Amino acid sequence: VNFADRLFQAVKKKHSAVVVGIDPDPALIPRSYFPDPLPDARVREALAKGYIDFAGTVIDAVKDVAVAIKPQLAHFERLGPAGIAAFERVVEIGREAGLLVIADGKRSDIGSTAEMYAAAYLGAPACVEGACAPRGAGGDKGPDLGSLIALADREGPKADALTVNPYLGWDGIGPFLGRGEATGIFVLVKTSNPSSGELQDLALAGYANEPAAEREGGLVRTVAGTVARALEARSAALKGESGYGPVGAVVGATYPEQLELLRGLMPHVPILIPGYGAQGGTAADVVRGFDAEGSGAVVNASRSILYAWRDGGTVAEASRRAAIRMRDALRDALDQRRRLFDAGRRRG
Amino acid sequence: VNFADRLFQAVKKKHSAVVVGIDPDPALIPRSYFPDPLPDARVREALAKGYIDFAGTVIDAVKDVAVAIKPQLAHFERLGPAGIAAFERVVEIGREAGLLVIADGKRSDIGSTAEMYAAAYLGAPACVEGACAPRGAGGDKGPDLGSLIALADREGPKADALTVNPYLGWDGIGPFLGRGEATGIFVLVKTSNPSSGELQDLALAGYANEPAAEREGGLVRTVAGTVARALEARSAALKGESGYGPVGAVVGATYPEQLELLRGLMPHVPILIPGYGAQGGTAADVVRGFDAEGSGAVVNASRSILYAWRDGGTVAEASRRAAIRMRDALRDALDQRRRLFDAGRRRG
Repeated sequence: VNFADRLFQAVKKKHSAVVVGIDPDPALIPRSYFPDPLPDARVREALAKGYIDFAGTVIDAVKDVAVAIKPQLAHFERLGPAGIAAFERVVEIGREAGLLVIADGKRSDIGSTAEMYAAAYLGAPACVEGACAPRGAGGDKGPDLGSLIALADREGPKADALTVNPYLGWDGIGPFLGRGEATGIFVLVKTSNPSSGELQDLALAGYANEPAAEREGGLVRTVAGTVARALEARSAALKGESGYGPVGAVVGATYPEQLELLRGLMPHVPILIPGYGAQGGTAADVVRGFDAEGSGAVVNASRSILYAWRDGGTVAEASRRAAIRMRDALRDALDQRRRLFDAGRRRG
Repeated sequence: VNFADRLFQAVKKKHSAVVVGIDPDPALIPRSYFPDPLPDARVREALAKGYIDFAGTVIDAVKDVAVAIKPQLAHFERLGPAGIAAFERVVEIGREAGLLVIADGKRSDIGSTAEMYAAAYLGAPACVEGACAPRGAGGDKGPDLGSLIALADREGPKADALTVNPYLGWDGIGPFLGRGEATGIFVLVKTSNPSSGELQDLALAGYANEPAAEREGGLVRTVAGTVARALEARSAALKGESGYGPVGAVVGATYPEQLELLRGLMPHVPILIPGYGAQGGTAADVVRGFDAEGSGAVVNASRSILYAWRDGGTVAEASRRAAIRMRDALRDALDQRRRLFDAGRRRG
């Protein structure tokens, strides 16, 4: 079953498009999750243990409300080896809770290096009829060391999907596919931050006579639009029963007009929408990234769920309440849009 | 002393622009670096130990020939927590050997998350007259937990520079500065891989009447050219005695015409040139990224140095020989170009 089918089956079953971002920040986590006083050494290990406990509490509280978690790697990398161990434990906890896991690393590199990242977060390449024999097998100088790393690749828990940066072109994206059809990627198209337009919105030459340009609000002529069209071509070719393929896109809730235009440009591309909640995106904004059936997208919130306890209640109560509120707000906005569509169809 | 000054002082002192990329790959490292047979469990730890020993051997062999090492993070991340511990040990070994350390992670994210990556690899923000008081200090809900992570940030060894991806605009780049003037960044402008042009070479609208466009071979009108001009503006404002600032650029040796044009567009930007050796870049190609004085750039080779042992000799002998050959090839090519310049000046 391909990644998009797994994702949208979960969305349908739970009637929820909520993804909970796991961005642990000691300045915002209750002090009780960390030893007091902190040890004099191995502070990173002490904090990492707190990250696992905190994330575990939230994941358990939201597991029937959310469809996926999105652990953000920078927060874990900040704690060095102990942080990566915590990341792996959070991936396990998420999977044990029946959630999909989207590792948010925004990785990219030249092909041979992108392979390394893909193995790190999504697992070893899927072998189809011997087509991925261990590298280095045979030859005088090539002892069978490829198999050593294949053993290593089996040791860590792997995510279901990874976020990927498109700046290097398809060489830097392709290696993240081919980890088995159950895994997917979300490629940055239009990010939620204030300066995202500096590069992503640049207008391209050569579209003056393109009839689609006006219809698509000029978007087709931007860098983001070019990335979107490349993703659409790849994902359409690999689409599953849901109508979506494993090549997804990241489009921020904070640019709702572009979100709607990009949804139209990428009918076979699952969209991961960050920027809901603390960054300012609303339910009315994000529904513009869903298809007419109310599928095709999931919405991430991190701080507004993780740190809801700061407005009262325990971490478990507050995160669950915030996740339910978000799920219901998305449901209501999608239902409302659906009714408008249906009314329009009857009249049309 | 700013990062660029440190880098180019080392280049001058060693009369070398060589950076050795540390990309450990078990399929290419001598079998003797790993236990035989491998243990049944904790394979990642066994491999990580081999990475440290192998990198340590190479670093010791090249320390007076190279100016910096560039550990590539994906290779270490593939081994999970043990891999990150090995990465940190390699950073320490590099610094103890008197080399600068450029962490190659090509990271980027929205501002608050980019801060996390910056702290992870370059260290906590530099505090100027209390301007970076611990986050979360004071306030009812804000116990002084910002200071917890400040303690954690001190535990891991940090690199001198990090590679950064520009897709998110300046929000995703700026947080990597301000770690103290001794640290720097190298932002991807034109990468060495075959598909780099898919996004980076896209021609932009609106330059039809720009007089510089023709002079600059059209480059100013591309995405890469736009990134280059943004980096030049930032680095010029922060330039040190060397004439260069801490905001560097990555431009691949495999596109020598663009390398020369980009050098011209970014007179205050240090250039890190990957793609020498195994990827096909030659000394004649890379000198086009240096300034008229033969400064302003450093050149990375990974596989052609690390794995030179496969053509004979021990790892130490072969890597040293390959690094010296590269250093001398760069010297010769730069000297030759210098003589041409001087001859041209005398005639002119």
